[in-house]
This record gives sequence, C-alpha cells and structure tokens, in this order.
Amino acid sequence: MSWQRFQEHHYTFPNLDFAIDISRMAFPDDFLAKMQPKADKAVADMKALEAGAIANPDEGRQVGHYWLRAPELAPDASIVDSIKETLGTIGNITASIHNGETQGVDGKFENLLVIGIGGSALGPQFVAQALGHPEKDKLTPFFFDNTDPEGMDIVLARLRGQLGKTLAVVISKSGGTPETRNGMLVAEAAWKSAGLDFAKHAIAVTGKDSKLDNYAKVNGWLHRLPMWDWVGGRTSETGPVGILPAALQGIDTDQLLVGAKEMDAVTRVPDTKQNPALLLALMWYHATNGNGEKDMVVLPYKDRLQLFSKYLQQLIMESLGKELDLDGKTVNQGIAVYGNKGSTDQHAYVQQLREGTNNFFATFIEVLQEATTPPVEVEEGITSGDYLQGFLLGTRQALHDNGRESVTLTIQSVSPRSVGQLIALFERAVGFYASFVNINAYHQPGVEAGKKAAASILELNKAIQKHLASNKGTAYTAETLAAAIGQGTDPETTYKLLCSLAAKPEPRIQSQPATPFKDTKFIYS
Amino acid sequence: MSWQRFQEHHYTFPNLDFAIDISRMAFPDDFLAKMQPKADKAVADMKALEAGAIANPDEGRQVGHYWLRAPELAPDASIVDSIKETLGTIGNITASIHNGETQGVDGKFENLLVIGIGGSALGPQFVAQALGHPEKDKLTPFFFDNTDPEGMDIVLARLRGQLGKTLAVVISKSGGTPETRNGMLVAEAAWKSAGLDFAKHAIAVTGKDSKLDNYAKVNGWLHRLPMWDWVGGRTSETGPVGILPAALQGIDTDQLLVGAKEMDAVTRVPDTKQNPALLLALMWYHATNGNGEKDMVVLPYKDRLQLFSKYLQQLIMESLGKELDLDGKTVNQGIAVYGNKGSTDQHAYVQQLREGTNNFFATFIEVLQEATTPPVEVEEGITSGDYLQGFLLGTRQALHDNGRESVTLTIQSVSPRSVGQLIALFERAVGFYASFVNINAYHQPGVEAGKKAAASILELNKAIQKHLASNKGTAYTAETLAAAIGQGTDPETTYKLLCSLAAKPEPRIQSQPATPFKDTKFIYS
Repeated sequence: MSWQRFQEHHYTFPNLDFAIDISRMAFPDDFLAKMQPKADKAVADMKALEAGAIANPDEGRQVGHYWLRAPELAPDASIVDSIKETLGTIGNITASIHNGETQGVDGKFENLLVIGIGGSALGPQFVAQALGHPEKDKLTPFFFDNTDPEGMDIVLARLRGQLGKTLAVVISKSGGTPETRNGMLVAEAAWKSAGLDFAKHAIAVTGKDSKLDNYAKVNGWLHRLPMWDWVGGRTSETGPVGILPAALQGIDTDQLLVGAKEMDAVTRVPDTKQNPALLLALMWYHATNGNGEKDMVVLPYKDRLQLFSKYLQQLIMESLGKELDLDGKTVNQGIAVYGNKGSTDQHAYVQQLREGTNNFFATFIEVLQEATTPPVEVEEGITSGDYLQGFLLGTRQALHDNGRESVTLTIQSVSPRSVGQLIALFERAVGFYASFVNINAYHQPGVEAGKKAAASILELNKAIQKHLASNKGTAYTAETLAAAIGQGTDPETTYKLLCSLAAKPEPRIQSQPATPFKDTKFIYS
Repeated sequence: MSWQRFQEHHYTFPNLDFAIDISRMAFPDDFLAKMQPKADKAVADMKALEAGAIANPDEGRQVGHYWLRAPELAPDASIVDSIKETLGTIGNITASIHNGETQGVDGKFENLLVIGIGGSALGPQFVAQALGHPEKDKLTPFFFDNTDPEGMDIVLARLRGQLGKTLAVVISKSGGTPETRNGMLVAEAAWKSAGLDFAKHAIAVTGKDSKLDNYAKVNGWLHRLPMWDWVGGRTSETGPVGILPAALQGIDTDQLLVGAKEMDAVTRVPDTKQNPALLLALMWYHATNGNGEKDMVVLPYKDRLQLFSKYLQQLIMESLGKELDLDGKTVNQGIAVYGNKGSTDQHAYVQQLREGTNNFFATFIEVLQEATTPPVEVEEGITSGDYLQGFLLGTRQALHDNGRESVTLTIQSVSPRSVGQLIALFERAVGFYASFVNINAYHQPGVEAGKKAAASILELNKAIQKHLASNKGTAYTAETLAAAIGQGTDPETTYKLLCSLAAKPEPRIQSQPATPFKDTKFIYS
C-alpha cells in the first residue's frame, strides 16, 4: 500500500471514534465519480424512505427502523408517540425487574430466556455477546433460537432449578412463527413441570393482536410490547426486540441508540466521501460487480464481535438475495456473507483466502482498545492484544500482497455506542446497495415457499401416523403407504417421514430395514 | 424429485446407520462413469498415503490420521506402539482425574480449560458441543481460542474462584503458536494471582521437544502428550488433540474412534457407489466444476451440530485452498464453506439461497432421532422435532424447485459414533477431491506470509515504544516517527500502531488528533 493512497481513502470520523479504510480495494480512480449518479439516487431513495415512503412496495409498508433511534424524525405523530412510549415502558419494566419490584415465583430474576428466531434472535444474541460480561450482567441471557427439542433441553438443563428466577421474553413479529411458538410451548411445559406458573415469568414482544399477543393477554403474562409493521425483523435490533433483552441484561441501551443515531446522521450526508455507508456500499458494488460475484468475508479481530458475521449474514443476504428487481426483471441478486473472528480464522480458512480462489473481499474490523484494564504482558511491553492487532495488520497485508481486496473499519472499543454505530452503518449500506441494484431490500418472498412446503410435510406426517394407527399390524413400504394416503407421486417424503417416526424415542412405528431401502417395511404396533 | 432418481442416488449404509443422497445434484447421467479414472486415481493415491507414502511432499511428511483409529494399519511398528501407548495414557489420565486420584489444589477437577487455536481448538469445540451435556459432563469445558485479552478475561470471569478445580490442557503441535503461548501465559498469570500453582493443573499436548514440551517438562506439569508430525492440525481430532479433551469431558471416545474407523473402512472401497466419501467428493467436483466455482453451504438440522460448519470450514478450505498444484502450476483452488444450523438459517440467508445468486450447493445433515427421551408434543402427535424435519425437507424442496442443488447426509442420532463417522467422511472426501484436482491437501503454505508480516509488525511496535520512550515529550506524527525509526516507506503501519498504543488502558503514549489524520501527533509522557 502506498501512504498516499491510504491518506486519500482512509476516512476518519473523529466525532464518532470511527474510521473506514477503502484504500486496499482496487477500484479505479474514476470509480467514485462514475458512481455519483447511483449514489445520488440512493441518497434520495433513502430520504424518501425516512420521510415515510412505502419503501417496501410488495408488502405495502413503510420502513422505519431509523425512527427507532430518532423518534422525532418519524413522519407521523402516532409513530413518534408509540416509539417514545415503548422506550419508556422498557425503562420501567427493566427498573422494576432490576430493583426486585417485579419478581419471579422464587425471587428476584437472575436469568433471561429469549425465545425467538432469525431477526428475533440474531440481534439479541450478537449484542448479548458483544456487550455482556458474566460478572456484570444483571440477568444472564439464554436463547431458544430453533425448534430442536434436544437443543432446548440443553438450555433447560442449564436453567434446572432456576426457572422460578428466570424471565422469558418471547419474540415474534407475526406472533405465529412456528419455531418460536414451539419454543414457547416447550418453555411453558418446563415451567409447569417445575410447578411454576409460566405467565408470571413471561413477556411478549409481538405485533398488536397477533396470536402471541392474544395468548399473552389471555394468559395474563407480565407485559406485552409492540412490534410495528414498519420495522422488519432483520432491522429490529434498535426496537423493542433488541432493546428490551439488552436492557434487562444490564447493557446501556441509551448509548446503543446514541451510537445508531449518530451513525444515521453521518450516513445521511450526500457527499460520498463524508458518508461511510455510501463508501461501504460502493465497495460492495465494486467488489461484486453489482451482481454478487464475490463473497463478503467478515473478520472482526475481537472475540466480542464473533457473532457479528452471523448477524450480517442475515441482514445482508436476506435483504439483497432477491430474484426480481423493482421492475420485475429476473436478477438473482445477493452477496454471500460469512466469517467468524481473527486471529482464530487465520488458523482456519485464511490459507484459502490468501492462495485459493479469489472469490471474496474481506471486511476487517479493528478495535483499537484491547481491554479496559491493562492486560498481562506476554513479552516486555507487548500484550496479547498487541499480537491480535499484529495479526490483523499482517494478514491484511498478506492478502493485499496477493491481490485480495479488503475494507477495514476501525472502532475505539466494543461499547454500546460503537455496536449501535456498526448496526446502523450496515443497515444503511444495505439500503444504499439495494438502490444501486434496484431491488426491494425489505421483503423476503423466497422464504414463503419453504414454509409452505414444510407445512404440507407436517400434514403428511399427521396423515401417515393416522393411517398407520388405524391399520395396526399392517406392514407398509414407503410406496404402498404413499399410494394408500394419496401421495403416490411422492413416496420419497413418505419414506423420509417414516424413517424419522421409526427413530422416535419409544417409537410406535417400527421399521424392518431391507435392501434396497425401498423395500423397508414400517408397521404400527 | 422423481422417486426413480431418489432410489438410484440415495445410498444407504445400514451397518453404519448412515445414508447419502445425491439425487438432488443435477449431474448428467454419464458423470460418474466419466469420473471413474479420477476416482480410481484418488483411491490409489489414498491407498499409498495410508501405506505410508510421503503424501505431503512439500513438508516431506507422511499423512497418518487414518492410523489414529486403526493403529494396526500404520506402516511402522514404532507408530503402532506410539498410538496405542498414547491412547492407554489418555485412558489412565482420564480415569485418574475422574476418580479423584489426580486433583487440583482445591479438590477434584470440575472444569476443563482447553488452550489452543485452529486445528487445536475447532475439533475439540465441535465435539464438546455436539456430544456434551451440562448435567452429564464430568468436566465442564471452556476454551481460549484466540489472543484477545478481553475474550480471555470473559472466560476467566466464568472460572473465577474455581481455578483450583480447573484442569488446563494446552495444545500446540509446533509448541510455538503465539496465540496459544499467549493464552498459556495469561492462564498461568491467572492461576498465580489466585495463589495457585499452574503446573499442578496443566497438561501439554505438543510435538516432542517443542518449546511447549520443554516448558511443561521444566515446570513439572501433570502430563505431556505427543502430537506426531504425521498428523496435521486440521485432521487431529481423532488423535490426542481431540481425544484427551473429549475423554476428560466424559464423552465415549472409544465409540468416536469406532465411528471413524468404520467410515474409513467403507470409504476405502473402490466402487464409487459403495463409497460415500467418493460420492461426496465427486459432488463437490460436479458442483464447483473442479475449480471452486460454487460455495458449500453446510446446513445441519440439529443444534448440537452447529459448530460442524466451522470445523469443516477449516478442514476443507485450509486443505483445498491452494495456489499451486502438485506440478507447480498456478491453479488457485479451493471451495468456500459456510453455514450454521437449520431451521434457524431459514430465517437468515435461505432467502438468498432460494432466490438470489446461485453460487452455492447445500449440504443438509439430517438427524433421524429427535431426542433420547420423548419431547413435548406441540400439537397432537407432533413434536418440535417433527417441525425441525419438516423444515429441512421443505427447505430442501423449495431450493430444488428453484434449481439449487443439495446433498443430504442422514445419521441416526448425534452420537460419539456418528460424529466419528462424519469427521472421517469429510477427511477422506477432502483427500479424494485433492487428488481429483492434483493438489497437496496437507500443507498450508499461505499461512506463513501473514505470520511473518505479523512478526515484523510486533518488532515495529517494540521499536516505536522504545523510540518514544527515549524521546519523552517530543511530539511525532506517523510520518516523522516512521522516518526516525527507518520505516519511512511505510508510515501507515506506524500510524496504526500509534493509534492502538494511544488507546491502551492507562496509556503512556498520548495522541493529539488532527485533521487530516496524518497530522495527528503522538507523545510519550
């Protein structure tokens, strides 16, 4: 790298304790100028979005996550009031739980079980790990983020004997997400079998009048907090979805909102070189040629930021991975995102990054402050944190020497404020990039197909069980059973379901394996 | 999917409780036949490797991880004896710790702190999560897997007051890995500051006569176990690196070795259709066109397997991501690997997989048994595990309907045996694929450059501190300081280091920020 290019393309934002360095991206000298029309349009689109345009046309919705940290900017007084009121409620709930006014059946709340998936789990998990500390957390966070009974059992094992001091926060925007519904039912059963009333330990965060909202109301849960239809799951971290669990854990959520708000302010600036989200989105466009040609590898050099790549995987891939553009043209857009943390990953896949297929660009995240108290010196004047930074700079240089591109983001420390900044930075970069490639970043039409297919598979599961139960002792192959229940064209799914039913603990359906496998017989006994 | 194609390309291995389904990969009918010569060569290469050939020519080494689970196959009696003896030692150490014969200063060992990185951490982490249980583990596992002081501080906070009952296992093949050395020093300091003798709580796993080996010997650690030069880090899970921590945790490592051994046996079979590792590697070749054109997305539908994608990221990317082939030709090979777990990921990036850029193939892992005890029913006759399987089958179908390819691996349950099988399956598939594309899968030449660059950056860090300390009160910019210490051509690295030094807790170097940033001044005070 030349010092000259670094000075030209290392943009510092001293008021934010933030910097972005794009000098190691090999864009041509006229790239930023050529992209100016697209940048201008993206800024204009974003301005309209923030002013309340229906920025998610397919779903006929406004897109309002930026209002969450600046309610005064919302286009409508009822939205302003609702955000402010909800933040006040979160503050009151949190205070009442921390001071012991609101308690569990067995006493002051000590643990927090967040039940959610996707946008209702990834943000809270990322923030909990980034900003929590086992000796400072007011509540210790746990998560149900899937519908795996064994996974939930392991979490419940950690909470054994403590459910009476555990607060459950159930989060589902639609209020009908099956994984979250299942998690809630499993949790409810666990509280019940411990002789405890789940309702006295539960808070719902969900859309008004959703199934979950009604369930919580009818059962007399502690609280119900809103999710608004103008906030998408993957951009809900600065809303009740993210703020409530973080506040309960004891994280300074005011500072998180301050960080997001100040990053919003600087990323509204139309001048590209003063707008880190525009710079970032432009680098994505340069690297991927505007059509996802390269993967984004996220490499934070800090254990606390380990989950950031998973959070970004959702934010970026679910927002940008679209078949159609806004004009209905097939574009199959998207940018694949993966990563973990440095320097750990240098001992994993950096070999391929440096030498292998050049199908990626890296995003390094540098944290200047190694710790809040002086760490152990491992050599004279050198700490393990100096090594961490040495590996970041060394790896970045080694990649650069082999023609691999990278962006570097620098923050002062992993704090509520910087985490808020990072969230807001990538939210807006995603919005800008979507403008560049003319797609709707705020819907997820491709998710429906899998959900529908899954629902029909569960119906088939029930039909299989019912048919076998009413024909006890009769041996079926997948083919004969599928034919018997009107699924003759697809014995494969029947076969897969039968194999699982026969593998149940204490199964009622027995299998008689055979070769070829299609002759395997299944009997209800 | 047609039932016909499923029957043809769903290969079951009933003796292993294992199946592989490649029917949803769109390879042409003549693909397997056309690949036969490559498959034959790969099997022959593997046979030579297992017989003791120098399969890692650059490093002049044998590649012997398959011997770890079948010592009798090792080509040399001294190797046979060494493996058997080490397994015996691990058994003795484990028994002595579990029965309390060997204790920590404060009593029976309850916790296990594994200190390692890359190949010395990813396998142990994956196995610990896949097979552990908080209520059944004999020792509770913790990890230092990086050189981040804050990350280590958080682990130590969890162990506060318990170090006298915590066993540290320090793992480094070379015995000189800086991250691991730093972790060991930080751990040693923590034990010391708790008034405890670290040596009485420490075991080393390392190459004979390495720095770590000597350090452990001189300081009188509890035990030293070998790492052999014929086992690479990323294939060391069935050696002492993986077996010792797993056995200490209370996992049935005999069964893990049985699983690996039986998968080894079936993947030695020359007939492609009877060899799941050949089938898998051939699918990688088909999907990526033999040159990494597509990413591998790993989607296990089971929380316990969540770390498998991270484990595979190392195994596959470090093995296959190579600049040169065995003839010295530039090939820039590799397959990018990422993933997490289903159905969680359906709420994250499956939108892009289904609709976005078709730059991947999926690897589903299906686990037939949902749990070992009957889970809660969430609807009549339906458990959350039925939902999990429904989402797997539904998502797979939705991807298929949009022309996205997938392989499905099916196991009965997540057990020591099946985990051993999966490890062995992918190890051999990687070896076969490397044969197909004519590369050395067993070295990692690209990692050196980053290490060297990092080392020179640490030297620069020391030089900066020294120069500033001997010129107290003098204000330097990055440019003037770089010139003063002979780094005039690269003020950028000097600038980056100065920013970090000024961000230290209780810093001795103060910064006076300025705009443009190159005018920022740094002073030792």
